[in-house]
Amino acid sequence: MSDSPAKILPPVQVLQWVPRADGGHLRLLDQTKLPTETAFVDCHDARGVWDAIRRLVVRGAPAIGVAAAYGMVVAAQGLGDDELPAGLQAAGEYLKSSRPTAVNLAWSVDRLLARARQADGAAPDAVRAALLEEARAVHAEDERLCEAIGRHAAKLIARCRGVLTHCNAGALATAGIGTATAGMYVAHAAGHRFCVYCDETRPLLQGSRLTAWELMQAGIDAVVITDSMAGQVLREGRVQMVITGADRIAANGDAANKIGTYGLAILASRHEVPFYVAAPYSTFDLSLPRGEEIPIEQRGGEEITEGFGRRTAPVGVKTYSPAFDVTPAELITALVTDRGLIQPVNEEQVRGVLAGP
Amino acid sequence: MSDSPAKILPPVQVLQWVPRADGGHLRLLDQTKLPTETAFVDCHDARGVWDAIRRLVVRGAPAIGVAAAYGMVVAAQGLGDDELPAGLQAAGEYLKSSRPTAVNLAWSVDRLLARARQADGAAPDAVRAALLEEARAVHAEDERLCEAIGRHAAKLIARCRGVLTHCNAGALATAGIGTATAGMYVAHAAGHRFCVYCDETRPLLQGSRLTAWELMQAGIDAVVITDSMAGQVLREGRVQMVITGADRIAANGDAANKIGTYGLAILASRHEVPFYVAAPYSTFDLSLPRGEEIPIEQRGGEEITEGFGRRTAPVGVKTYSPAFDVTPAELITALVTDRGLIQPVNEEQVRGVLAGP
Repeated sequence: MSDSPAKILPPVQVLQWVPRADGGHLRLLDQTKLPTETAFVDCHDARGVWDAIRRLVVRGAPAIGVAAAYGMVVAAQGLGDDELPAGLQAAGEYLKSSRPTAVNLAWSVDRLLARARQADGAAPDAVRAALLEEARAVHAEDERLCEAIGRHAAKLIARCRGVLTHCNAGALATAGIGTATAGMYVAHAAGHRFCVYCDETRPLLQGSRLTAWELMQAGIDAVVITDSMAGQVLREGRVQMVITGADRIAANGDAANKIGTYGLAILASRHEVPFYVAAPYSTFDLSLPRGEEIPIEQRGGEEITEGFGRRTAPVGVKTYSPAFDVTPAELITALVTDRGLIQPVNEEQVRGVLAGP
Repeated sequence: MSDSPAKILPPVQVLQWVPRADGGHLRLLDQTKLPTETAFVDCHDARGVWDAIRRLVVRGAPAIGVAAAYGMVVAAQGLGDDELPAGLQAAGEYLKSSRPTAVNLAWSVDRLLARARQADGAAPDAVRAALLEEARAVHAEDERLCEAIGRHAAKLIARCRGVLTHCNAGALATAGIGTATAGMYVAHAAGHRFCVYCDETRPLLQGSRLTAWELMQAGIDAVVITDSMAGQVLREGRVQMVITGADRIAANGDAANKIGTYGLAILASRHEVPFYVAAPYSTFDLSLPRGEEIPIEQRGGEEITEGFGRRTAPVGVKTYSPAFDVTPAELITALVTDRGLIQPVNEEQVRGVLAGP
């Protein structure tokens, strides 16, 4: 495996800026149409970006953050010169309201607003240009974080014939090559061949709809299983590591991620297969000492009872539908970050690696 | 909890014999229409029964066995007096071919054929009457086995506020009150109130389509979860036991059951929640020393990729789809049989309890 810094391209462009003489617009891959159709949505104003985030045309906290940054750029293009400062503030609040729980969304909008304040007093077109520059910087940083994670994770994947993952912490969730998938793309580009078992990930099937699809675009051998088959796949020795993403990681390394991750970590532990969680520094919430303090969102029962167009449970049946669970640090072999591996997983190591050398 | 022998009725009649002056026919609940529609299929000849078994109108090894017994009765009604012995043999082979892997099917057909041979030389109508009597005996025995399991399991359930189950080892899979569900019906009839978390059980969703439905018919509090939520349900202390059925149990107590059972047993063990497997004596295969020797059937990938009526995975994606897994005896707290509890689960106890007092 080479450590060369050659850029690994994502298998698909989730979002791109389409420039034109007097500005440009944001083009998003429509993830609601995957895997059966590859369609794009063009966003020429804040409303278009808001709607795309709301409808899950674009999803994954990092990708939403980048989309919102460009959302501020198209908002600025649509504002008259005299409306700029106040209008931008309003556009920012509006964009933040599209999905209030995604941390990167607010972070990204605030970053663009700060840049606009810096440029205060400049010509309106200079402010607009500064915003585009900032959005491109947000975009580029996300790409860099993914690739840095990928270089570290690829060394782990290079030892494996089979890898198991859950949900989609992939290129489709970021502006780059993903988090959990990043090492797969780097290892594959370096010539290593392996098979990725993708938990379909009920209730919303991000594993079968998205992860398997994007891996196939890159020519990586993807195999879809139901979540209930992971135990058997581990038992048969088909995978030598498990890797997932995370939605939030506490200071002690406890990691919240898509429901089912916790159970998968227990299964991996029982079979003595390493369990990794890949995430950039921005996913860590050092204000939370432990994962128990991460609130678990409950989702609507219809995702279980009529998930894909037809009813598969009795009318009126109760459901229980936690969207996330928390995997305790003791079940995580290492956290794979853009700043290197955190191993063993404990607060001292987390703070040490994130602080950098 | 009373140990009174009062008969507990199943919440729904999966199969019933509809008599008429010159014979009768078999009426089956059409399980392919559940949970959205309660419809019945009337079978007047062997072809109708064969088709119903093949199309999963009736499913579950015990229920299939009873249906096949009545299939021999309607076959005999349709044969001319001079065709009886040879025609019955042919009808038996034909019925067995509907689902060649179900052990109870062949066992039941052979039992009816043996009864016909016993009656050899009697008047044709006496042979037909003997066959109906034998089918009713097969039916009644299945009811008794379920109820015996239920009386033993109810004592375990009486201690619980919450129970977790996987797949459908319910009334819908038997002629009686089921195997894994039997204790639920007995405990509920005795006045105990509790909640049953039903794994939806991908890929075929027997948990949400069938188990939740039949529990609701009986007024039992059923909650559907995706298979990936079981770990979180256990972690939150929502259930005090897990109980499933089994397709085949080896002499050492290793139990083959629907895919996902093995992983669930590991999760239960990690949370120190007892894990029970309920099955009648006829599910034990003492010729197999260990579960590793039970072959694992592979199913078609389309159950994963288009299981919800529309495609949810990329066209051309690979799948891996084991239909069953084997839970090792060490993960099973007790086997709950019609002859009592087998605990601890090992070959000596299995042979001892099955041999009877």
